[in-house]
Amino acid sequence: MKNCLNPQRTIDELKQLRALTGDENGAQRVAFTETWAKARAYFKSLAGDLPVDIHTDEAGNLWITLHGASERALIIGGHIDSVPNGGWLDGCLNVWAGLEILRRIHAQYDGKPPVTVRVVDWADEEGARFGKSLFGSSACSGNLDMDEARGLTDKDGIRLPDAVAAHGIDFENVKASHKEIGNAAAYIELHIEQGPVLLDLDLPLGAVLGTFGVERHAITFHGQAAHSGSTPMNRRRDAFLAAAKMSSEIYQIAGRSGQGVCTIGSCTTKPGIVTSVVEECRITLDQRHLDAGALARMLEEAREASERFAKEGSVSVTWERIWQISPRPFNDELIALCEESILETCGVSHRLPSGPLHDAAEAAAAGIPTVMMFVQSLHGISHNKIEDTKEVHLAQCVTAFDKLADKVMAWIAARP
Amino acid sequence: MKNCLNPQRTIDELKQLRALTGDENGAQRVAFTETWAKARAYFKSLAGDLPVDIHTDEAGNLWITLHGASERALIIGGHIDSVPNGGWLDGCLNVWAGLEILRRIHAQYDGKPPVTVRVVDWADEEGARFGKSLFGSSACSGNLDMDEARGLTDKDGIRLPDAVAAHGIDFENVKASHKEIGNAAAYIELHIEQGPVLLDLDLPLGAVLGTFGVERHAITFHGQAAHSGSTPMNRRRDAFLAAAKMSSEIYQIAGRSGQGVCTIGSCTTKPGIVTSVVEECRITLDQRHLDAGALARMLEEAREASERFAKEGSVSVTWERIWQISPRPFNDELIALCEESILETCGVSHRLPSGPLHDAAEAAAAGIPTVMMFVQSLHGISHNKIEDTKEVHLAQCVTAFDKLADKVMAWIAARP
Repeated sequence: MKNCLNPQRTIDELKQLRALTGDENGAQRVAFTETWAKARAYFKSLAGDLPVDIHTDEAGNLWITLHGASERALIIGGHIDSVPNGGWLDGCLNVWAGLEILRRIHAQYDGKPPVTVRVVDWADEEGARFGKSLFGSSACSGNLDMDEARGLTDKDGIRLPDAVAAHGIDFENVKASHKEIGNAAAYIELHIEQGPVLLDLDLPLGAVLGTFGVERHAITFHGQAAHSGSTPMNRRRDAFLAAAKMSSEIYQIAGRSGQGVCTIGSCTTKPGIVTSVVEECRITLDQRHLDAGALARMLEEAREASERFAKEGSVSVTWERIWQISPRPFNDELIALCEESILETCGVSHRLPSGPLHDAAEAAAAGIPTVMMFVQSLHGISHNKIEDTKEVHLAQCVTAFDKLADKVMAWIAARP
Repeated sequence: MKNCLNPQRTIDELKQLRALTGDENGAQRVAFTETWAKARAYFKSLAGDLPVDIHTDEAGNLWITLHGASERALIIGGHIDSVPNGGWLDGCLNVWAGLEILRRIHAQYDGKPPVTVRVVDWADEEGARFGKSLFGSSACSGNLDMDEARGLTDKDGIRLPDAVAAHGIDFENVKASHKEIGNAAAYIELHIEQGPVLLDLDLPLGAVLGTFGVERHAITFHGQAAHSGSTPMNRRRDAFLAAAKMSSEIYQIAGRSGQGVCTIGSCTTKPGIVTSVVEECRITLDQRHLDAGALARMLEEAREASERFAKEGSVSVTWERIWQISPRPFNDELIALCEESILETCGVSHRLPSGPLHDAAEAAAAGIPTVMMFVQSLHGISHNKIEDTKEVHLAQCVTAFDKLADKVMAWIAARP
């Protein structure tokens, strides 16, 4: 068997991409901008050296297709787009690794693999410009809320439909891209972890169990303003006291849930002056879990706690849902194959959920057997120019991800 | 003994003042405004029916003097000025009660009491316009910080020295008003409580022990922003968690202190977005106690707690002093006389500290034996158009305060 996989080439091409499209503040490959189009053009120029079909679908997703003996397809997904001032690896690591895997498969099977292999560069995963992530993959899966997306504008007031039209996309027709996944038999995605779990465990790679479901709420406690000097402590209806008790409580709730996380990201107080007890205190609560039942329990426990704290402090509490999404668990058999690939590469693996959303969540939601592989992030940080991963880990992830592609092709071929 | 004290007249005149100078939003007697000048003119027109000296000192304080056999003087203080949209009683209750007491003393002693009795209407107790309270009384006591006051501006950018000049006051000469208290032998002040203590105890009147000292600080916890989905709970450096723990803690600290109070009035978070752990959380802490040692202990305990919570959460904490003032305890003998007067009037009394500051704090700081009497506030609320006190309690407070004036005159006469 000829194996010409060259992980160093992937690293070199990503550095070349950074030189072409980044600046001193980091990556600037924001979707539907000229820099993004330039990054895609570079990618297409490299892919064009292979005997592949290259086309862009109705939602702006870029597909590189190496046809196989069967039309049943392994899809390797990722995204070239970044946030403004972003990192050099978030998203594009995967499409470049996918390109390297296409090269290896083409060489190994002499241009005719047993199943079709496709690399997709989803359009606008980050949602940096219009505040709505997973545009291309959700259009393709069918989950995109057209009414919501139609009304989105960027900070200059440009409407999303007009911005995508400038890149040849007819907004009203984006869901026609769904036809692309008609033959999809499996979906795999590689990504930097964007968190510190693998770093803490000193492990290069992990198999991802799925993307967290999210419950996002604003919680407002309503008390009574009162003079800070003349109001005895036992007479106060202090909205901040009740809200503050939620902070320790959510750590308890998350702890009881197993792998769930809870975050109070914002707190505002009214009247918010030094000489008055707080009348109204609003906090935001973001809760995430891989298991829908556990997520629902976390939410219920937070509600109960908020009502208990409100009662203790003679204040009232109201909840307002900001956003929610269901958990998207990945395919158990593919998770096992991912773990095998990592073990064969590094000798040690770890299973972990994904806190952030990824295009893989849309693939899973569309019913495609899906798995992701994470590679360690230095500092556990992403969406920042200091985002980075050790080169030895980058090489390992390309190698392990290639093994995964091979195993999944065999898995597809073995299925009826 | 002829006793023509008429508490109902005080109530009627205060209602007349409200009709003359208030509107549908409440009292508008803001210092150094035309409405304030109108209120003073009404007061002077009533006082002018008595054989008194009326003059305004260098700081804009209005003095009504009924000369006695001795120049040693009982001073009855208060303030006609209010906050914008304020209540009908805050401040002016006392000067009107003082006027009624002057009438009674004049009648009783046929114009020549044994000691001099003076009513003073301090200028700008509230500090509503320039954000600095006790202007006139602190100029008179000598405590006014001239450099600070010189730089104050109102919301329209008008400087305090220019605003007071329009009312005939030479700012640079305001401390010459100190001569007014050269013969001061005692100072008494009546005020609505502005809190719920007497209301809760169902008592009309209380003897005030002094005004609280205040320590006012901003406390900022510094953690690390991190993604709400990808950062495990045990890896977070959550500035809000540490700050929130302060809320319950200050209730413990105040409880241990006896009569002290602590308030977190404001909380701000950075970056303050739903998807990030809080990197920086700033709270304000206002602590008050009548005892300087206890106040210092409360501050020390809050500092220690903040450092403990910071350490627990792997964050850091910084403190910044916003403002402080020492406690101003009143005179023990005058407190006893005040309690006697209340007991003789209502049969029951209560001793309590004052959380808010009052001009009496400046009188005490100037070394004048001082006491205040509080009358119950409905709802425990002031600085609001709904501020109110039952008429039966208003009548009782004028009666009891008149008894106090009588007792303090005798106390002055009996001292060497």
